[in-house]
Amino acid sequence: MRTHYCGQINTAHLGKIITLCGWAHRRRDHGGVIFIDLRDREGLAQVVCDPDRAEMFATAEAVRSEFVLRITGKVRRRPEGTENPNLPSGEVEIICQEIEVLNTAVTPPFQLDDENLSENVRLTHRVIDLRRPQMQKNMRLRYETARAFRRFLDDKGFIDIETPMLTKSTPEGARDYLVPSRVHAGEFFALPQSPQLFKQLLMVAGFDRYYQLTKCFRDEDLRADRQPEFTQVDIETSFMSEEQIMELTEEMIRTVFKEVLEVSLPKKFPRITYAEAMARFGSDKPDMRVTLEITEVTDALKDVAFKVFAGVANSENGRIGALRVPGGATLTRGEIDDYTKFVGIYGAKGLAYIKVNDVTQLNEHGLQSPIVKNLHETALATIMQRTGAQNGDLIFFGADKAKVVNDALGALRTKLGHEKGFTNGKAWEPIWVVDFPMFEYDDEAKRWSACHHPFTSPKDEHIEFLETDPGRCLAKAYDLALNGWEIGGGSVRIHKEAVQSQVFRALNIDAEEAQLKFGFLLDALQYGAPPHGGLAFGLDRIVTMMTGAESIRDVIAFPKTQRAQCLLTQAPSAVDEKQLRELHIRLRQQVQTTVEVNKE
Amino acid sequence: MRTHYCGQINTAHLGKIITLCGWAHRRRDHGGVIFIDLRDREGLAQVVCDPDRAEMFATAEAVRSEFVLRITGKVRRRPEGTENPNLPSGEVEIICQEIEVLNTAVTPPFQLDDENLSENVRLTHRVIDLRRPQMQKNMRLRYETARAFRRFLDDKGFIDIETPMLTKSTPEGARDYLVPSRVHAGEFFALPQSPQLFKQLLMVAGFDRYYQLTKCFRDEDLRADRQPEFTQVDIETSFMSEEQIMELTEEMIRTVFKEVLEVSLPKKFPRITYAEAMARFGSDKPDMRVTLEITEVTDALKDVAFKVFAGVANSENGRIGALRVPGGATLTRGEIDDYTKFVGIYGAKGLAYIKVNDVTQLNEHGLQSPIVKNLHETALATIMQRTGAQNGDLIFFGADKAKVVNDALGALRTKLGHEKGFTNGKAWEPIWVVDFPMFEYDDEAKRWSACHHPFTSPKDEHIEFLETDPGRCLAKAYDLALNGWEIGGGSVRIHKEAVQSQVFRALNIDAEEAQLKFGFLLDALQYGAPPHGGLAFGLDRIVTMMTGAESIRDVIAFPKTQRAQCLLTQAPSAVDEKQLRELHIRLRQQVQTTVEVNKE
Repeated sequence: MRTHYCGQINTAHLGKIITLCGWAHRRRDHGGVIFIDLRDREGLAQVVCDPDRAEMFATAEAVRSEFVLRITGKVRRRPEGTENPNLPSGEVEIICQEIEVLNTAVTPPFQLDDENLSENVRLTHRVIDLRRPQMQKNMRLRYETARAFRRFLDDKGFIDIETPMLTKSTPEGARDYLVPSRVHAGEFFALPQSPQLFKQLLMVAGFDRYYQLTKCFRDEDLRADRQPEFTQVDIETSFMSEEQIMELTEEMIRTVFKEVLEVSLPKKFPRITYAEAMARFGSDKPDMRVTLEITEVTDALKDVAFKVFAGVANSENGRIGALRVPGGATLTRGEIDDYTKFVGIYGAKGLAYIKVNDVTQLNEHGLQSPIVKNLHETALATIMQRTGAQNGDLIFFGADKAKVVNDALGALRTKLGHEKGFTNGKAWEPIWVVDFPMFEYDDEAKRWSACHHPFTSPKDEHIEFLETDPGRCLAKAYDLALNGWEIGGGSVRIHKEAVQSQVFRALNIDAEEAQLKFGFLLDALQYGAPPHGGLAFGLDRIVTMMTGAESIRDVIAFPKTQRAQCLLTQAPSAVDEKQLRELHIRLRQQVQTTVEVNKE
Repeated sequence: MRTHYCGQINTAHLGKIITLCGWAHRRRDHGGVIFIDLRDREGLAQVVCDPDRAEMFATAEAVRSEFVLRITGKVRRRPEGTENPNLPSGEVEIICQEIEVLNTAVTPPFQLDDENLSENVRLTHRVIDLRRPQMQKNMRLRYETARAFRRFLDDKGFIDIETPMLTKSTPEGARDYLVPSRVHAGEFFALPQSPQLFKQLLMVAGFDRYYQLTKCFRDEDLRADRQPEFTQVDIETSFMSEEQIMELTEEMIRTVFKEVLEVSLPKKFPRITYAEAMARFGSDKPDMRVTLEITEVTDALKDVAFKVFAGVANSENGRIGALRVPGGATLTRGEIDDYTKFVGIYGAKGLAYIKVNDVTQLNEHGLQSPIVKNLHETALATIMQRTGAQNGDLIFFGADKAKVVNDALGALRTKLGHEKGFTNGKAWEPIWVVDFPMFEYDDEAKRWSACHHPFTSPKDEHIEFLETDPGRCLAKAYDLALNGWEIGGGSVRIHKEAVQSQVFRALNIDAEEAQLKFGFLLDALQYGAPPHGGLAFGLDRIVTMMTGAESIRDVIAFPKTQRAQCLLTQAPSAVDEKQLRELHIRLRQQVQTTVEVNKE
């Protein structure tokens, strides 16, 4: 139907008769002549309709915004002074000879260049929203990124193998999406939270290097960077060590950033242990662009008069961390109040601080703060010395259970860093976080749970702790963080049945339950499982970062809202009673009514 | 952990010290020496363990089948006369210096070279089954095929865009898999039967050329070539005609076969109309390797004394087809009985036939058959002349509703063709089937239903029939058949809202229902939808044909049985009551009990 894309017409086509198809992006009448900016996925071309061809001109006059047109005409140079240097086709225009309206369009719900659209409007009219140049660019960059991942993995001998979408529910980890079976009454499939076990089985089957770009599903309450379905670059290898897996995937990320963004990431990504990351940054995915650090002062505050500090310092799992803000003494009361509110989101009950006026006077004269009078000089000296405080600085304190302090000061560190410019100026700061604990203690359930997942291998020298002291056991696990986001993570897996059974026991999964849920894995581990490991990268997040999009929803063609709804198609929706009957299920009427009310 | 893959060691490595990892495929003791065939995904290598290194030898002695080993040794030439020309590594062997057992293995449930395994055993122990060389080959060929599709589409400017897995139930077509929503009580997502509407919306959004290799889901009773989830090569384009779409995708199929199998498909695939395909082959996916054809004789049998024929010939939708089998007079009574039973599967109540002894005698002397005496000479002459019968031939007849005759004679034609060698000797015979009807009449529901789907465009000149005579309306639809399998199909879509609404009306979908189910499509068609069309290819089927596998399950790593079950993981399975409560559903206890009983 066409000879060229609009956006690709340039001076090389001067004098040629061409045919274009596209959308009327803009129509202007100027001096008796009609100008149509015709748009297709490659860009814009200016079409000039002169009144001397009456029929064509009449058609052009009827053209409205977003009409679909087919235009034939001759390419000529734009008159001097009317060039548009912002467009690849900006030096030329097409003198229209024929115009055909392939489809009309009613007035769109919004202008494509409107920058103040609510996300609800955009998602409801997603088809129009996707026409906007930024969204076209995002989807293409996503495609280029996926291709770059595939290319790298293909070149390294990885094989793309599809794993099932209809699989078995294993209520470990997040909540499953369930799919009722019609053939097997009362039974359900689950959509995969990840192809974890299948990729391990593929290693046992001898495929050696596997990858897949695949959809995963988690039925969790959604945060800004989460979707019910998301796409994972999923990788597994045999006969490779932790070190080798990290090196290989690090090379992959470097290659993808280079090919897609022409960005050079560091030759070698830095590594940090989980313990150090938590101590210094309060986070297992620290934003390394931020130069602020948390200082440990718990031990120095055990015997101070200030009860909040002393209480925490002497409690199990208590932590007091100090965050020095260089020059922070200039922060206003209002700003400090805002930061106090901010850390409240993370459970912090307050945000103590000291303004450092004169570091040589370790008392209320040199240090301005209501708490100073209740901290003895030794404690203050330790704080000043460890934080490296200078006159004019401000020191924030978090004192609570370690988890609360880490979450609160970790988030404050990042926020302050970006708001007040405590950053190193680099655009991309990847960092590996390694040596994760195998288990964390679940206070509510009174049992150990897996930090990564129950298939992660403990460090060889820590296997003995599985039975004696699970909390001491470190895992062969590694996460890759980039600018404060976890973009990927993985581990070396357990490849011996005996160790896997030990880990299940440590997790309070008895032999019967283990057999019922994971019997096929335990079986496979007995039939000659190779040492294996891998990781998974979150494609949506990586592309969100690469495009600079505000939300993961801006890099997904048809995303769900934070209430897990598709505003375009109105999914989910009610279904016929007949469908439910075939699936051997019925609605819980009472619950339904209750929840319907809660919905508003 | 290793320096090379086993299967890649050859004379180029002579004298080198190498390290291999893999599985003990076979262990033989021969003259005090232990030979281990070590296997990895690239093949086998022979490892020789001499008793002179005692520790190493002791380890080797403990090795059993499928143990996972790491071996270091020197590559040397095999002694003359012991080479294995069937292996790439067959000229060399590795003199073992070190051996490490990375994992032990219990005795596998079957030998990898056992060719008489039941499919149940194979699927239950899928991990071991996948180790078999044929399955390794199948999965790699699948991967290569998918890559070839992607490469072609990438090169042609197509963009891979992901569409949602959690979408809206539209109970047209096949049965949906449903996913209860936790957040929206009483509502359900559906897994996509295909990304049909989303890809059309992407065209309206201006992406111009879309593709995706994606999972689709249909909850139907399974036949040999069906799976609950299957993979589609899904394609959509804007501003292209039927003709151009067929040409482009034909080139794609040619390219994929060339790159993966080094097979040259014809330069131009033949085309046949749906009407002609049904008349000559009784099928809309004819196996063109078979040279037999059905001959139309309905009109010649309206006034014969044989009531079965006359009745059918004079009824609406009746058809009598003749299938000439050259030299078929030699078929035995037993064979004919078997064919009669065979056509019974397709609903045929019998299988009349005539043996042609002397074509010049149009009576019981020349033609051997109980029905000949009830067919007058003119009828017999027409049959002989139209079928081109020769002495020694046999002619089968199908007489029933056209659908039954087509199904029965169509299947018989293919069966006879392959069993009796009526084939043209070609390995691959692709054919486009075009000009499908828009609608077929559903006798039970007493209404028209869509032959393809309700979004298929009618031929421009047939739009008027939508309201007046839907049965006459042909569609811009096309299917690609290969060797009797439909491997792909598609259509030009409706891009005008008015036509789409007309088609919905023809299908008895009123405006309210249309708005409820497809409102977002009707909306999109109003906002400037370009002319667009596309198709989808079934990757599983194509790979099944390419590998020569017996079943689609042989090209899927973890398939379901024909009862939609995963024998490996035992999915589907019962789930916790708590999970159901969160999803606002409960089991239908009574139905469940009933069905449980039926299960046996």
